[in-house]
Amino acid sequence: MSEKLAEAALDQLFRTARTYNAFLPKEVSVEQLHALYDLAKFGPTSANSSPMRLVFVTSKEGKEKLKPFLSEGNRAKTLAAPVTAIVANDHTFYEKLPQLFPHADARSWFVDNQVLADITAFRNATLQGAYVIMAARSIGLDCGPMSGFDNAGVDEAFFAGTSIKSNFLINIGYGDASRDLFPRSPRLSFDEACRID
Amino acid sequence: MSEKLAEAALDQLFRTARTYNAFLPKEVSVEQLHALYDLAKFGPTSANSSPMRLVFVTSKEGKEKLKPFLSEGNRAKTLAAPVTAIVANDHTFYEKLPQLFPHADARSWFVDNQVLADITAFRNATLQGAYVIMAARSIGLDCGPMSGFDNAGVDEAFFAGTSIKSNFLINIGYGDASRDLFPRSPRLSFDEACRID
Repeated sequence: MSEKLAEAALDQLFRTARTYNAFLPKEVSVEQLHALYDLAKFGPTSANSSPMRLVFVTSKEGKEKLKPFLSEGNRAKTLAAPVTAIVANDHTFYEKLPQLFPHADARSWFVDNQVLADITAFRNATLQGAYVIMAARSIGLDCGPMSGFDNAGVDEAFFAGTSIKSNFLINIGYGDASRDLFPRSPRLSFDEACRID
Repeated sequence: MSEKLAEAALDQLFRTARTYNAFLPKEVSVEQLHALYDLAKFGPTSANSSPMRLVFVTSKEGKEKLKPFLSEGNRAKTLAAPVTAIVANDHTFYEKLPQLFPHADARSWFVDNQVLADITAFRNATLQGAYVIMAARSIGLDCGPMSGFDNAGVDEAFFAGTSIKSNFLINIGYGDASRDLFPRSPRLSFDEACRID
């Protein structure tokens, strides 16, 4: 049985973590991207479907390829971020189920039902995108997630000819709290968002 | 700037955390449900839209109301779990944006575009559902998330006459590793799921 994490860890993961719009000029290494994925991959998905595909855009060429599809408010900060992760959904994720869920024929649940496959891909890759945010914070990195961009354009530029579709973006680096950090916006209270039945 | 969390915390959140199908006979208190929400609420959402609504089903009456809509494989374990959280999306979340995003007229981005509102509700409530899983683990609880149920039936039983729709379910309690815990299924390697551009 687990204990509650230390207060400092709860702060780092949730309470003092923020969405950063500017990052310090400090590189994120390839080893850190592996460490991040090697935590996030363990988060639960439906039938272990693991439909998220990630592109870590780090090069100048990669950023230029992304640039035309960013909304104006997201453009400069995304070009300047050390890493921009494209969180994407593989809509034929079920082809990997014989490997990922070997104890049942889970592929057959989806292969003839693309509507179910699409919602499963979107829901579960989105969950995995949240695990990426939490994993990044867990290893001392900061995030700036965004959904303001041209999904179809990004799909054509990065995933042409595949069954992979972009979902949202996450800028990743070491957050610079001295620049463009907005005051924390209010959250809904327990009674506004929850009930106990 | 944050440090990497302790290895034990990374284990608890990701590496040794598991999807539990059975829970110890140990109550989850109302205070714990508040603590859980008061962490999860800080996770980022698009324009701070915070579209997740949560029903913590804990009573015998609540479980009976849920029972007819559970898939057969999820029924017994869900009735036995200390808490079953219904993670749901408020598809008119934008009515709360004047409160949640007071520095811009964000309501106007969604109120006349229900297609955008629907995808924003689903994506962001799903992210928040993942934050709930991570917050539960952070405070020493275990989870068993599921999407195998009749969403329309749950919506009618729990959210009739509202703009709220069920997304997925999470059983919550203290996991019993001695019962119905499957071996960890394989995950995709970095190279199978990720690339660096």
